[in-house]
Amino acid sequence: MQQSFIEVEATSHFPIQNLPYGIFSTADRTPRVGVAIGDYVLDLAVLEAEGHFDGVTQGVAIFNQPVLNPFMALGRAAWHSVRATLQALLDRDTPTLRDDDNLRGRALLPRRDVTLHLPVQIGDYTDFYSSRQHATNVGTMFRGKENALMANWLHLPVAYHGRASSVILSGVPIHRPQGQTIADGAEAPHFTASKLLDIELEMGFFVGTGNELGSPIPVDEAEDHIFGLVLVNDWSARDIQKWEYQPLGPFLAKNFATSIAPWVVPLVALEPFRIPGPTQAPEPLPYLRTDNQSYDIELEVWLQSEQMAEAARIIRSNFRHLYWSMSQQLAHHSITGANMRTGDLLASGTISGEERESFGSLLELTWRGTQPMELPNGETRKFLQDGDTVTLTGWCQGDGYRVGFGEVTTKILPAKPLF
Amino acid sequence: MQQSFIEVEATSHFPIQNLPYGIFSTADRTPRVGVAIGDYVLDLAVLEAEGHFDGVTQGVAIFNQPVLNPFMALGRAAWHSVRATLQALLDRDTPTLRDDDNLRGRALLPRRDVTLHLPVQIGDYTDFYSSRQHATNVGTMFRGKENALMANWLHLPVAYHGRASSVILSGVPIHRPQGQTIADGAEAPHFTASKLLDIELEMGFFVGTGNELGSPIPVDEAEDHIFGLVLVNDWSARDIQKWEYQPLGPFLAKNFATSIAPWVVPLVALEPFRIPGPTQAPEPLPYLRTDNQSYDIELEVWLQSEQMAEAARIIRSNFRHLYWSMSQQLAHHSITGANMRTGDLLASGTISGEERESFGSLLELTWRGTQPMELPNGETRKFLQDGDTVTLTGWCQGDGYRVGFGEVTTKILPAKPLF
Repeated sequence: MQQSFIEVEATSHFPIQNLPYGIFSTADRTPRVGVAIGDYVLDLAVLEAEGHFDGVTQGVAIFNQPVLNPFMALGRAAWHSVRATLQALLDRDTPTLRDDDNLRGRALLPRRDVTLHLPVQIGDYTDFYSSRQHATNVGTMFRGKENALMANWLHLPVAYHGRASSVILSGVPIHRPQGQTIADGAEAPHFTASKLLDIELEMGFFVGTGNELGSPIPVDEAEDHIFGLVLVNDWSARDIQKWEYQPLGPFLAKNFATSIAPWVVPLVALEPFRIPGPTQAPEPLPYLRTDNQSYDIELEVWLQSEQMAEAARIIRSNFRHLYWSMSQQLAHHSITGANMRTGDLLASGTISGEERESFGSLLELTWRGTQPMELPNGETRKFLQDGDTVTLTGWCQGDGYRVGFGEVTTKILPAKPLF
Repeated sequence: MQQSFIEVEATSHFPIQNLPYGIFSTADRTPRVGVAIGDYVLDLAVLEAEGHFDGVTQGVAIFNQPVLNPFMALGRAAWHSVRATLQALLDRDTPTLRDDDNLRGRALLPRRDVTLHLPVQIGDYTDFYSSRQHATNVGTMFRGKENALMANWLHLPVAYHGRASSVILSGVPIHRPQGQTIADGAEAPHFTASKLLDIELEMGFFVGTGNELGSPIPVDEAEDHIFGLVLVNDWSARDIQKWEYQPLGPFLAKNFATSIAPWVVPLVALEPFRIPGPTQAPEPLPYLRTDNQSYDIELEVWLQSEQMAEAARIIRSNFRHLYWSMSQQLAHHSITGANMRTGDLLASGTISGEERESFGSLLELTWRGTQPMELPNGETRKFLQDGDTVTLTGWCQGDGYRVGFGEVTTKILPAKPLF
């Protein structure tokens, strides 16, 4: 197993096997590209200036940039080349960085000293609905067990367009949203702060290289277009959603915020954790037919109320519960000719497994609030309360190391007075 | 009535009262901002270099830019100041440009000699559903007359997020999209080129200045955020839509292309054409309550098949048919805290009036294909055929002049072979 000269704990999310990309700034310098390694950030702009990526960047500043997009747009060969360079530079046996105090001092910064930023300029944000158990749970609650899955669900990866402007970084708090809801049996809606504020445990992937308008991405080439993955919490106001969503789908209930983790894990770092995907029956149409593969990514959600001394785990799920793969999502999304662009974010939809503790939203965990959840300090929750802090985390467990996604942590603030 | 020294026909869309903004290039120079006047484009980058906008641009290149966004982001006072400068410069009695052959030769270019480009870098694209007659028509077809309008429709401007990447300019042809549809009574879907390709006659507005995440836009301030309006044709594949759209709304059926006209008409140019909006009953909730106003904008759709010698008008509608105003759309869109950004496009949804000839889509005009439309040369249409060219146009009729939106013209090409 490859090791770095930088000490990395076995439970760290950021060993040399991972090397996720992010954007960071320091007191003395503007945002630029970095890679997480152990408790450090490696400053790629410094390495770029030293010529370490000359073969890839050809003199253009790719890493001294406030977003990952210029690097992502270079394509798969460039991603692999940069990763190989980084793994070599960070290796235990490579003296270049290890033994150069000056360079190390400039290029390796303690992570606690840097400020992280949204890593990608997101063009379009799409949210899928690809966990069968989640779709079944929601369908059962809203339409009954017999009609839980819509007729189309097993034939295509259902999705809708979300809002890119309100994708925010871990650490940015959100105010409880306000809007129209309707009371059971009422004639007319009223205006209120959402009472049913919920999380959605998701993962998303960023498109690295896109396609021309009118030229779909073949399913077997789809992974070549995927740059990397992030943790996603797709906030949802269930009461607003219920009133507004017909016939055109969720809108305000979902567009007030979507939180992502700061670190984008390269797809190639997940290679050791590939597993067979679920059996798909009925067999998908040819444009979706592929050697269906998934990844074994453990996912958790933790919640801490203002009364709790520490956070408690409320959900344990896994990326493997997704029925439709990322390749199928990308192939489907582009099949009518829609063009993907560098920086587009495609999220999985809530990831729920079969066991109750793996349900990826409070809607499902508390079964629409009918079965409140008890927290370790005796508090109960149907949905989120003001002051609650929610943390999503996830990792692939290797033999003695983890390829992790960091975390996305968000605090719920009370609704703000209007205007 | 103000007149320009440039001759402008009474039926021209581009008199001195309009001055819409666009992006154009010439053989010798890259894309930049221009204004349409009569048969000319006025090159604002040239005027900027001459110092005509110094009070507004403060030395920064605002017009020598490939998109309107930098200018839009300056805000309303700057928009008004630039417009006042332009109306003064183009006035019949102002010698500055009129009598300076050299400057005129450099700044005023025949429109036929320039190439137009997408005028705005669009952040998020949102499509509303704000014509009551359209929602009623569609609802009647799909759910019957009794349940035509959903319960929420009269309480809020229903909308969904569309795809920004596939917004294209007038003149760019589109290939017939392909995807999953299901035959009536069939057990499983099949893959096919869409047989029910349709137009949607819409108008859209561009957000000039946005709002902070979490701080909604008050309805009475909404117009201050609106830069200008464009014609929009929101292409729709009805058969794909029917199979995919439940429960999360239209996705692939709408995201393969949305065509817009090249000229963005400033909101202020529509001031003389303000009219009272429709009476809204029930009264909207306070955050949507406003002195409801609309604009009298005549809208037409023309169709030309490959067999026809000239296009025939198939639709006559009017912007006044919209139930929800742009101010209400913007206030609603941001009420949960969603942030608007410079360049966001908010479209109206299909604009249908009460008379059949004002129905803004073929779905409605042919009542789902049950009442085919006859073209002047004897051809009939249920939906669009390969080779059809569709043109949307619109204008406000003044006394002896028109404030027009130009046109958005698109040819339908056959489906492309996959991969």
